[in-house]
Amino acid sequence: MWGGRFEKPPAESARAFTRSFPVDRRMYREDIVASRAHAAMLGRGGIIPEASATALTDALDALLCELVAADGPPLTDDEDIHSFVERELTERIGEDGRRLHVARSRNDQVATDLRLYCKGFSVRLALAVLDLMDEIVNRASNETETLMPGFTHLQIAQPITLGHYLLALAEMHERDLTGILHAHSMADVCPLGSGALAGVPFNVDRESVAEELGFSQITRNSVDAVSDRDFVTGILHACAVLAGHLSRWSEDLVIWASPGYRMLKFDEGYATGSSMLPQKQNPDVAELTRAKAGLITGIATGWQVTLKAVPMAYGLDLQEDKRAVFGAEDNLLGTLNVLTGVMATIEFDRNRMRELAARGHPAALEIADYLSELGVPFRDAHAVVGGLVRLAESKGVSLEELEDTEFSKADSRLPGNVRRRLGLREIVDRRVSPGGTAPILVAQEAVRARQRIAWQRDHVYELIEQRLPNALRPAVSG
Amino acid sequence: MWGGRFEKPPAESARAFTRSFPVDRRMYREDIVASRAHAAMLGRGGIIPEASATALTDALDALLCELVAADGPPLTDDEDIHSFVERELTERIGEDGRRLHVARSRNDQVATDLRLYCKGFSVRLALAVLDLMDEIVNRASNETETLMPGFTHLQIAQPITLGHYLLALAEMHERDLTGILHAHSMADVCPLGSGALAGVPFNVDRESVAEELGFSQITRNSVDAVSDRDFVTGILHACAVLAGHLSRWSEDLVIWASPGYRMLKFDEGYATGSSMLPQKQNPDVAELTRAKAGLITGIATGWQVTLKAVPMAYGLDLQEDKRAVFGAEDNLLGTLNVLTGVMATIEFDRNRMRELAARGHPAALEIADYLSELGVPFRDAHAVVGGLVRLAESKGVSLEELEDTEFSKADSRLPGNVRRRLGLREIVDRRVSPGGTAPILVAQEAVRARQRIAWQRDHVYELIEQRLPNALRPAVSG
Amino acid sequence: MWGGRFEKPPAESARAFTRSFPVDRRMYREDIVASRAHAAMLGRGGIIPEASATALTDALDALLCELVAADGPPLTDDEDIHSFVERELTERIGEDGRRLHVARSRNDQVATDLRLYCKGFSVRLALAVLDLMDEIVNRASNETETLMPGFTHLQIAQPITLGHYLLALAEMHERDLTGILHAHSMADVCPLGSGALAGVPFNVDRESVAEELGFSQITRNSVDAVSDRDFVTGILHACAVLAGHLSRWSEDLVIWASPGYRMLKFDEGYATGSSMLPQKQNPDVAELTRAKAGLITGIATGWQVTLKAVPMAYGLDLQEDKRAVFGAEDNLLGTLNVLTGVMATIEFDRNRMRELAARGHPAALEIADYLSELGVPFRDAHAVVGGLVRLAESKGVSLEELEDTEFSKADSRLPGNVRRRLGLREIVDRRVSPGGTAPILVAQEAVRARQRIAWQRDHVYELIEQRLPNALRPAVSG
Amino acid sequence: MWGGRFEKPPAESARAFTRSFPVDRRMYREDIVASRAHAAMLGRGGIIPEASATALTDALDALLCELVAADGPPLTDDEDIHSFVERELTERIGEDGRRLHVARSRNDQVATDLRLYCKGFSVRLALAVLDLMDEIVNRASNETETLMPGFTHLQIAQPITLGHYLLALAEMHERDLTGILHAHSMADVCPLGSGALAGVPFNVDRESVAEELGFSQITRNSVDAVSDRDFVTGILHACAVLAGHLSRWSEDLVIWASPGYRMLKFDEGYATGSSMLPQKQNPDVAELTRAKAGLITGIATGWQVTLKAVPMAYGLDLQEDKRAVFGAEDNLLGTLNVLTGVMATIEFDRNRMRELAARGHPAALEIADYLSELGVPFRDAHAVVGGLVRLAESKGVSLEELEDTEFSKADSRLPGNVRRRLGLREIVDRRVSPGGTAPILVAQEAVRARQRIAWQRDHVYELIEQRLPNALRPAVSG
Repeated sequence: MWGGRFEKPPAESARAFTRSFPVDRRMYREDIVASRAHAAMLGRGGIIPEASATALTDALDALLCELVAADGPPLTDDEDIHSFVERELTERIGEDGRRLHVARSRNDQVATDLRLYCKGFSVRLALAVLDLMDEIVNRASNETETLMPGFTHLQIAQPITLGHYLLALAEMHERDLTGILHAHSMADVCPLGSGALAGVPFNVDRESVAEELGFSQITRNSVDAVSDRDFVTGILHACAVLAGHLSRWSEDLVIWASPGYRMLKFDEGYATGSSMLPQKQNPDVAELTRAKAGLITGIATGWQVTLKAVPMAYGLDLQEDKRAVFGAEDNLLGTLNVLTGVMATIEFDRNRMRELAARGHPAALEIADYLSELGVPFRDAHAVVGGLVRLAESKGVSLEELEDTEFSKADSRLPGNVRRRLGLREIVDRRVSPGGTAPILVAQEAVRARQRIAWQRDHVYELIEQRLPNALRPAVSG
Repeated sequence: MWGGRFEKPPAESARAFTRSFPVDRRMYREDIVASRAHAAMLGRGGIIPEASATALTDALDALLCELVAADGPPLTDDEDIHSFVERELTERIGEDGRRLHVARSRNDQVATDLRLYCKGFSVRLALAVLDLMDEIVNRASNETETLMPGFTHLQIAQPITLGHYLLALAEMHERDLTGILHAHSMADVCPLGSGALAGVPFNVDRESVAEELGFSQITRNSVDAVSDRDFVTGILHACAVLAGHLSRWSEDLVIWASPGYRMLKFDEGYATGSSMLPQKQNPDVAELTRAKAGLITGIATGWQVTLKAVPMAYGLDLQEDKRAVFGAEDNLLGTLNVLTGVMATIEFDRNRMRELAARGHPAALEIADYLSELGVPFRDAHAVVGGLVRLAESKGVSLEELEDTEFSKADSRLPGNVRRRLGLREIVDRRVSPGGTAPILVAQEAVRARQRIAWQRDHVYELIEQRLPNALRPAVSG
Repeated sequence: MWGGRFEKPPAESARAFTRSFPVDRRMYREDIVASRAHAAMLGRGGIIPEASATALTDALDALLCELVAADGPPLTDDEDIHSFVERELTERIGEDGRRLHVARSRNDQVATDLRLYCKGFSVRLALAVLDLMDEIVNRASNETETLMPGFTHLQIAQPITLGHYLLALAEMHERDLTGILHAHSMADVCPLGSGALAGVPFNVDRESVAEELGFSQITRNSVDAVSDRDFVTGILHACAVLAGHLSRWSEDLVIWASPGYRMLKFDEGYATGSSMLPQKQNPDVAELTRAKAGLITGIATGWQVTLKAVPMAYGLDLQEDKRAVFGAEDNLLGTLNVLTGVMATIEFDRNRMRELAARGHPAALEIADYLSELGVPFRDAHAVVGGLVRLAESKGVSLEELEDTEFSKADSRLPGNVRRRLGLREIVDRRVSPGGTAPILVAQEAVRARQRIAWQRDHVYELIEQRLPNALRPAVSG
Repeated sequence: MWGGRFEKPPAESARAFTRSFPVDRRMYREDIVASRAHAAMLGRGGIIPEASATALTDALDALLCELVAADGPPLTDDEDIHSFVERELTERIGEDGRRLHVARSRNDQVATDLRLYCKGFSVRLALAVLDLMDEIVNRASNETETLMPGFTHLQIAQPITLGHYLLALAEMHERDLTGILHAHSMADVCPLGSGALAGVPFNVDRESVAEELGFSQITRNSVDAVSDRDFVTGILHACAVLAGHLSRWSEDLVIWASPGYRMLKFDEGYATGSSMLPQKQNPDVAELTRAKAGLITGIATGWQVTLKAVPMAYGLDLQEDKRAVFGAEDNLLGTLNVLTGVMATIEFDRNRMRELAARGHPAALEIADYLSELGVPFRDAHAVVGGLVRLAESKGVSLEELEDTEFSKADSRLPGNVRRRLGLREIVDRRVSPGGTAPILVAQEAVRARQRIAWQRDHVYELIEQRLPNALRPAVSG
């Protein structure tokens, strides 16, 4: 493809090192679709003969069909997916195949292909997150009244409801959706027609090409167009953040499934045994999810290292972009898929949760708040209750189990009406401040969350239909 | 503040290790402003007596005034900024000071403070980026016709104009603005009123507090509200990407100022000498900018490591968020400031740029494109020119200097009209595809870029006025 | 120091950006000590007059004294520690002060200073690790017979002894020592005399300077000497690995102190309360330790990003080395110090540990092993026990509580002698394979660990005496 | 392998997510070799019948033979390499195959396998580094007198010799060797016999197993043995540092091959062309090497993220260790291989190097040093020359080209004898301080470097013979 000025072929080690076909052939759909739009435009604009354009688009269509049927290109000796396609075309339609590369460079071509790929990846990711959110909100809807210990510092802080906890996960993932769609919009700009870095001296219709490929706009500067990989950094960042979120609740699952807590059990389909210890049931899936957060953070960081101080405009440093994107995709989509199954099947032990929620003096704040309502400054009330806790601990009882006289010794206004406020259910029921854990609020929030998921899903479907060419659309069940 | 239930004071090493006041006192404005809004709301809602609320807001106003005058709080022995403020209040107004902490926890308080800080930081950052972009576009406007070598792989690819290169930098930084404003919107949600993690049992008016503090919405889930630090990850990511961009063009400046290129000189005010070598003039600023990209990528990565698998909801792991944000701010704002000066004063050597642009057979693609227009498939034309390049190199001449007979031997249709297309200026003038390097386009793009900068600046001013309480607004010159 | 060829002073922003004095003045001891050795050598070699050399060394001695008394240099307007010292000298002894910089450059000077610093840092770190190991082994010695659940996948796998667990931590940290000493040896090479990058044309006696400064060898190549920062990467890596180890057992402490486990309590001196919840006792120290692992991994990674693709030999990119080293030191030494206190004071609940150890069918493997000894292939024995576990779980009893008939139904050779092997103490006692958890072995290993710590401490003391100049030696109690 | 206690098979998504066979089958040699040693020991110790042990070792030998011939195991549906091997054995020799797993767990088994792998990897890496160093020193030996510009800050600082620069690279890589061998020693400890985490209750002879596998010692604590992955962190760190070194000199190659410098040309076998621009010759190999430094830094960082705060002892988080190691190996060995070819074939342009060395007033320091020798304090001499440089620059001449009167006006003792010291060759010849660039020194250092390489190679050969079982030894040419 570029050998004209060379007298010698590449050394074997150099060719093996620089060729990207084993990695980038995964983008065959994108390369063919973009080449097809380019070819059609060349014909429309008279840059190549109409007949050549037709020959090219027909051949590209046929090639795509074949490759889809074969689940991708064979691992030939070609340098990259672009060379593969051009060689195939030339073998099929001769001279016309050699006309395709006018008015473009691999620099704008590969950027276009990868942007298309990232757009497809981001909608696949968005759908997987929505599927997970669906399960989370389903479970939350059924647990709006389930009492559980609310942890801070992994100490029991206050009772909350399990539904409330689960909706917190949905909140996290709703931000992930926003991040993924932000990354989608970064990729949604078409660089084709920027040439090697300076633009091209042909009457190319960049807008129509972009439209055909589903891009909502074209790049404004050809130097930037070939050097920019912010859309890659963007999607990798969204992946790392998402993986980090998954690692946090996986950590919770590991702890809660552990013998000290037994607040939940993994369904057997999502647990694993031990080769040596016959009795073990291990939360492998959740542990591996934690590890994937490490892996994907490493991929995202590595990519930013690669970009550091790379001279403008294009350098082969950028070629590693695809390995990073594909690595993130493979690891993250699998994780989402399995965690969706975990979420759907996990067995919560409501009794055990309630039992644990009662530990750790959950009434402490109630008493302080009660005193506070009676006009005691909160800081003083806090100190009073601190003393009561010390007393209760020294007696080995729970705060509620202290004697009335012990209460009144601490503050004469206690016990009075405070006792009736100390039940676990009363405690959560009182937390009706917006965003609070009261079951009545949690039930409302679950409904709203479900509604927002539906809107978001519709939005993603729109992106698929409007912003992705047909051949790149994922199968959508909705 | 929390000692009631403890019999022993903290060990010295533990206190030194966990106290955050040396770091977080930088957020004193945010803490006071948020406490003021909380106190006022407590009074309005009857949660504390009106008089107490007034005493609190007055004392907070006075404290803020004093601290601003003193450029921040002294480094007392307090545990954190929250304890400092509460202690100061109590010393000033007695019992009422101890009423402030009702219906809130440090968990929602610190999240509110840091969100306010990040909102302020993001607009400071946006303004600094806009200032830099102003200079870039100023310089670009004056260099729309300056010919320079366009590099790919640090080899000369094609001539471009310096203005075109500079506008590519403006494009990068325009994406940075988008990223910064995205991070701003992530921070723009008010968690106050979420309590420790469960919400509060008082009739708090979270909406009015949020409005007073300039937040556009409130958090929807109290567990998520205290555990979420995505807004920190978001702004750190925007910082790392921006620092990476700066490192890329700093790398170009270092190379272009080096003796092999001499395409530019740093103004003496922005260059540095050597302690040993009296003749040296070093691009220290640009080198250090590259290093800052490393530093800030490290900060952002370190923060993501910290978040990995942290159990919900709040843990002290999160306390390191502020060190990360402040470290990024200190290093990045200084970098932007100095690079704006560099950009304004750099001396471009137009002659040298033009001279270099003529190297490396800039006409090669023109000849291939010419043949292509005559109907030769581009791939064949490419091979023809490849052979001519090999011939020219062996003769030690430039492609344009080959004899007509040598041209016509390669292809009988050459030289014909091709020679008139080979001048550097002709080459760039022909690149009028959208986004191309033709001076006429570059001049238009510079105008448009300036317009967009103005719009963006207006938008940032709006954010300052509408989304930041008065005390947190940066001084704005516009 | 370098202004001769410049007509303009540096811009304020550039000076603020590039000056390193606020950071590097921390190395004043190292700079003065290295300058002193350089000055003395210049005199001995006749490169400057003997009297000048004496004036310089005297003045440097006096300056060091003063600065030590003042706990470091004031934050003057100097560019860096080197300029500060040279200016001070010139103000004190006039012309002779201006003779100091012959035959050296800041490039070799700063590398020497930082190597000295890193040598001192690595012994400080080694001593802190040894102190921690002392406490770990102390506690282990007292817990050689304490039964606790051994976790894999945070599920109970088998009973182990607490002493055995603690000695595993000592093993980790013994590897840390090896890593730290490896980093020490990387720093222990003297670059002084390498000049800017080419060596110097004076008859310098590099060996004697190195010896005076405690270096065991000199660098072999002047270009490498000024560009190499592997010793920085090395110590940062040792720090990150150590911080990672600390994060792992801090995680265990957090979980074991949590209400599901209550296997230990933090001493009140090392626990923290809540501003809102009066009853809370939080493991803040352990959580912050986890966060420090993130912070320090970020510092180490950021430094490697900075080094990526930096051209040879010296560039100002390298100036960020000191911020990285100091940041790692400040955060890590504080962490080690506090965790040593935690380890010394933590209250283990032996009863609770034993109670938990009995959960999760600890006898399962014993039965499989028993069958195995009787000739049943292990894999078959594993399956038999798997079935028994399923049976026990369905009955809600522990494996040992199954009826004899249930055992014999699974395999006729059961129960026979197996029951006598199922006690927790019997289980750990049988694990006498080298490295196993049997109390008798653990007690021996604790003795050996203590012996190795003593040897290591002696070795570190030797390094302090032989490889550090007097002024840089940490106070050592032993 | 572990299904006994489960009633349900794993879900498809869970199985796909957790199975590691697609990755870990690459360690089939290590797994079989370690299983063979285990089986033989079981027989010797009477833990299984001798005949079973013989059946197992014979079957393992045969399996290894077959798999080596087939270049590894087929991608069957097995969970991991351990299950694959055990299943194959059972299919081949029946019941005896099910005896293999007694007295071991996958936890100690996989740690053993990966340690063996890392030992093999580190010697493969060491040999590749030695091959590269050989080429570097070869080239250096031929360029001991070649003058080139010595760069700091990418400005010309002083002339050096090309041989001196190249030997600086050899120094870097000699440190890499040290790092790799340090990583080797970390892996060189045998954990087999540690069981799941507690040791095993059989009379296992761990020392003999370790010896048979080439390990120099056994782990001392079974909990640590299964949770420790420092040897992975260690080898990944060595890889990242090495990749960073390669990125630094690749950056130099890219710049020096660029049209502003033309100090070297890549051999055509190691250069690449452009799909659009027929004249281009791109340093793709060097650029991709820079990118690999990013990739490998990302892998190493990601792995440290994964380890952060993982509870003890073993969790499935650790399973990602192999992906990290294999990724580093694949990318780094290819890079070393191609760069060795680059180094062997690169065409240095000695004339151009000399021409550039003369730029940038290389004589400046000589004049300052000359004045210094005459008794002028260096700092004053530096200022005098600074003034002369300013004068020369304003006249557009080089420092040596100034008139004698201009010299004497600056200092009456100039010009005198200074002129004879200003030739490039004289400048380098005078730098005979140890480690300096004088050709006479460089020639000596090249000889010494070659000697050290030979010693190191012998040492690596010894490690291969003594510390690796036969089946894991790389083919060694020496």
